[in-house]
Amino acid sequence: MERVRQPLNSEMGWSTRERIVVRGLDLPNDILGHLDLGEMAWLELTGRRPTPGEAAVFNAVVVTLVEHGLTPSAIAARLTLLGAPEAMQSAVASGLNGMGSVFAGGSEGVARLLIEAQAAHPTSAHEAVAAQIVEDHRVRRTALPGLGHHLHKPIDPRTPRLFEIAAEHGFKGRHVALLEAVQREAERVHQRTLPINATGAIGALTCELGLPWQASRGLAVIGRAIGLVGHLVEELRTPIGKEIWLRAEEESSRAAGAA
Amino acid sequence: MERVRQPLNSEMGWSTRERIVVRGLDLPNDILGHLDLGEMAWLELTGRRPTPGEAAVFNAVVVTLVEHGLTPSAIAARLTLLGAPEAMQSAVASGLNGMGSVFAGGSEGVARLLIEAQAAHPTSAHEAVAAQIVEDHRVRRTALPGLGHHLHKPIDPRTPRLFEIAAEHGFKGRHVALLEAVQREAERVHQRTLPINATGAIGALTCELGLPWQASRGLAVIGRAIGLVGHLVEELRTPIGKEIWLRAEEESSRAAGAA
Amino acid sequence: MERVRQPLNSEMGWSTRERIVVRGLDLPNDILGHLDLGEMAWLELTGRRPTPGEAAVFNAVVVTLVEHGLTPSAIAARLTLLGAPEAMQSAVASGLNGMGSVFAGGSEGVARLLIEAQAAHPTSAHEAVAAQIVEDHRVRRTALPGLGHHLHKPIDPRTPRLFEIAAEHGFKGRHVALLEAVQREAERVHQRTLPINATGAIGALTCELGLPWQASRGLAVIGRAIGLVGHLVEELRTPIGKEIWLRAEEESSRAAGAA
Amino acid sequence: MERVRQPLNSEMGWSTRERIVVRGLDLPNDILGHLDLGEMAWLELTGRRPTPGEAAVFNAVVVTLVEHGLTPSAIAARLTLLGAPEAMQSAVASGLNGMGSVFAGGSEGVARLLIEAQAAHPTSAHEAVAAQIVEDHRVRRTALPGLGHHLHKPIDPRTPRLFEIAAEHGFKGRHVALLEAVQREAERVHQRTLPINATGAIGALTCELGLPWQASRGLAVIGRAIGLVGHLVEELRTPIGKEIWLRAEEESSRAAGAA
Repeated sequence: MERVRQPLNSEMGWSTRERIVVRGLDLPNDILGHLDLGEMAWLELTGRRPTPGEAAVFNAVVVTLVEHGLTPSAIAARLTLLGAPEAMQSAVASGLNGMGSVFAGGSEGVARLLIEAQAAHPTSAHEAVAAQIVEDHRVRRTALPGLGHHLHKPIDPRTPRLFEIAAEHGFKGRHVALLEAVQREAERVHQRTLPINATGAIGALTCELGLPWQASRGLAVIGRAIGLVGHLVEELRTPIGKEIWLRAEEESSRAAGAA
Repeated sequence: MERVRQPLNSEMGWSTRERIVVRGLDLPNDILGHLDLGEMAWLELTGRRPTPGEAAVFNAVVVTLVEHGLTPSAIAARLTLLGAPEAMQSAVASGLNGMGSVFAGGSEGVARLLIEAQAAHPTSAHEAVAAQIVEDHRVRRTALPGLGHHLHKPIDPRTPRLFEIAAEHGFKGRHVALLEAVQREAERVHQRTLPINATGAIGALTCELGLPWQASRGLAVIGRAIGLVGHLVEELRTPIGKEIWLRAEEESSRAAGAA
Repeated sequence: MERVRQPLNSEMGWSTRERIVVRGLDLPNDILGHLDLGEMAWLELTGRRPTPGEAAVFNAVVVTLVEHGLTPSAIAARLTLLGAPEAMQSAVASGLNGMGSVFAGGSEGVARLLIEAQAAHPTSAHEAVAAQIVEDHRVRRTALPGLGHHLHKPIDPRTPRLFEIAAEHGFKGRHVALLEAVQREAERVHQRTLPINATGAIGALTCELGLPWQASRGLAVIGRAIGLVGHLVEELRTPIGKEIWLRAEEESSRAAGAA
Repeated sequence: MERVRQPLNSEMGWSTRERIVVRGLDLPNDILGHLDLGEMAWLELTGRRPTPGEAAVFNAVVVTLVEHGLTPSAIAARLTLLGAPEAMQSAVASGLNGMGSVFAGGSEGVARLLIEAQAAHPTSAHEAVAAQIVEDHRVRRTALPGLGHHLHKPIDPRTPRLFEIAAEHGFKGRHVALLEAVQREAERVHQRTLPINATGAIGALTCELGLPWQASRGLAVIGRAIGLVGHLVEELRTPIGKEIWLRAEEESSRAAGAA
């Protein structure tokens, strides 16, 4: 028996001889010169132009995700360029592959937690929901996502600034409030300072912007792709990948027995 | 004899307990809320904030590169997500790997051609340099990059709009003029309409912005990374990857002998 | 306070002017001409040469994983080559990125399940452990990994052949026995035929070979890398990627409004 | 006007309810237990079983490509695993992306050079063709591929062993002879020792085996995929990626101004 074919529908964009249409808008006339890159990313994700407030908060969120210094993914990208200088796109791809559960899963986890907890307890006060969340994590012995930072203490300086921008534009709402309630409860239960880190702030603001929690990792990928191109342009000018490689190889070879 | 170690220097960014610095600027105070995503990308690539004109032209260039419909790279990303839905970053990476010589090499080729031709003939008139370029390509039987389009005829609607934005901000200069001279000469020699396509316009504007030609592919990668996240968010909601796979597999299996 | 440095040790291989050593063996003299590719892969994974039996079973397992027709990952690799024909390695990389939880997680899941269940119940009979496993999955409403196949019914023809090869060489032991007990119990509880599929057989044989369960995905990656190179060499000769792309783009463009 | 559809043909493999066919052979009955992994790779690439001699030489060639110690691609793979431990396949993909022109282009270059030179001068003696090749490279100031090695001097120990295995099985023919003639001529012209390195030997043997030159990079990818899985299994047991990252980040942060 023949399988029933499904249609191949996509609303991202299409072209004809005279026209190029992206998410329903005419690219040359409605988009170019009218939308900045953050607003364009919003259009891609949601299918509509952002309001000025959405644009401001969304731009701030993604800008936060661009640059984090010499991270494992930046080094992986530089080492890939060393072997394939003709393929910068693949060096970026190698770096992006490292944006998995450890470095990019956090915001996603916060966004999912906030959305699912509120969906499960739609009428409860934040304090009650927060208490449930903290207790669940304590019992399962898993860390609460979005709280604490190994370096930035007592606060992560990005968080108050992101919340300030969100508040200015009316996007500091119930998701941020719930995360703040989780923080207070966690600090009470665990008796230590647990600041909301940038990951937590970004997860909460993704929810405030009405984006699905799965989009969180996409925002991290967008930010990081820009950052990786920055690192690779620096690597072309002042390379360090080869030195990182040679040091590691020399040390491990000596240890393994190469005199 | 011991190899002399080279230092590991990077000026991209660094953090301490209280501070996060990106390209010399304080991230929370100087960047968040002040730079949109395009301006942030410019900061990453050049190490300084853009002027308003640079920001406008750069944003328009990268925005142009975001969305091109259901391209091979968008399909590759969707098919990758089908096998690894837990790793959206790798689906984007798979799509980016296809941004090679065929789809992303064009702007790079135009930028390199314009810069190298002007470096080789610094005092010649555009017409003379253009004649040399067209003749070189004719003799080597290679296509002139940045001219002609398989679909958009007689003009690529993105090109006049990009040049209009560039002119508004004082970035329609000698690189655009040289490319236009190449176009005129090519049309004269080959006796057919050869519009400057978006690839050509972007290559020329990369030069006008003072970016190295190697950055061209980086701009394509940034734009495409955003577009691919858009496609993947659509794929999560209304998947088509599985249907594309099944149709191809069914047809090839039947042809190969599976009755 | 300065962080304490950890040494960079690796026992994979090293070279000097005269020698190339891989996992303690001299590459030209001890390996080349003595080990086939499967035996070499075993050496890489375990640090020692396989016995003839280990070599036979391991080769059969990985050979099983090489080719599965026009899968999503094979199509993704072909579409990537279309954009970057100069970078076959990246086309393979794009295909490998799709070997995630859906297509490559299965064997890993089986291997992990068998090892952890036996570690938790070291003295129990297979039937008792199997009953516990089936009940756990029933309660959590998750599918038992390694059982059933959407196409190959009533049996997956690879499974009896793999078990036959394993038995010949003394590698059909307690892990296979436990998986067979799980199958019997699952068929009894769910009242339907649930053959051990190739994924299940491979997961069990990975355990029989004494490899860590995390290596299962590595075996899938090795097999698939070989298969993807095969697909790409065919694509170079008789391309189909462009046709897959054009059909999808044409259909979605028409649906979206391009007349 | 409607585009004419091309068929989607692939001869790699297909399945029905009872059968799994790979390159025309029944997988369970004709392949499993009969072909080792190298022979399976040959089947994938050529569509037929290898002769014993082809199997021996092909296995030796690919085995040579598996392990090269702590290379940039091995480090990139380990750093990727650090961020995405749930996605070993993507760590391998990140490492493969670095197998570009610098590390994997060599054998391809040798194979292409040998095939194209002989196609252009089908009746000339090796010495005459070699003299032409050396002169062409001297004039264009490009290095001859496959000759010389930064570490292995005066000879690359893999080369005589590979040629010995090839000779045993009747695969040391005109391609090896031409490369040896190129070596002699290059040493005469440049007045220094220029041993055929493993890259050169593998390029020549790819030709002797009758594989297309484009397959050379595929062989490097197959070998390296196996080697990368080996590195990642070691990384799971005794990690060094984090230490490589932290050292690089600490040094560059201090240099950039983080006190």
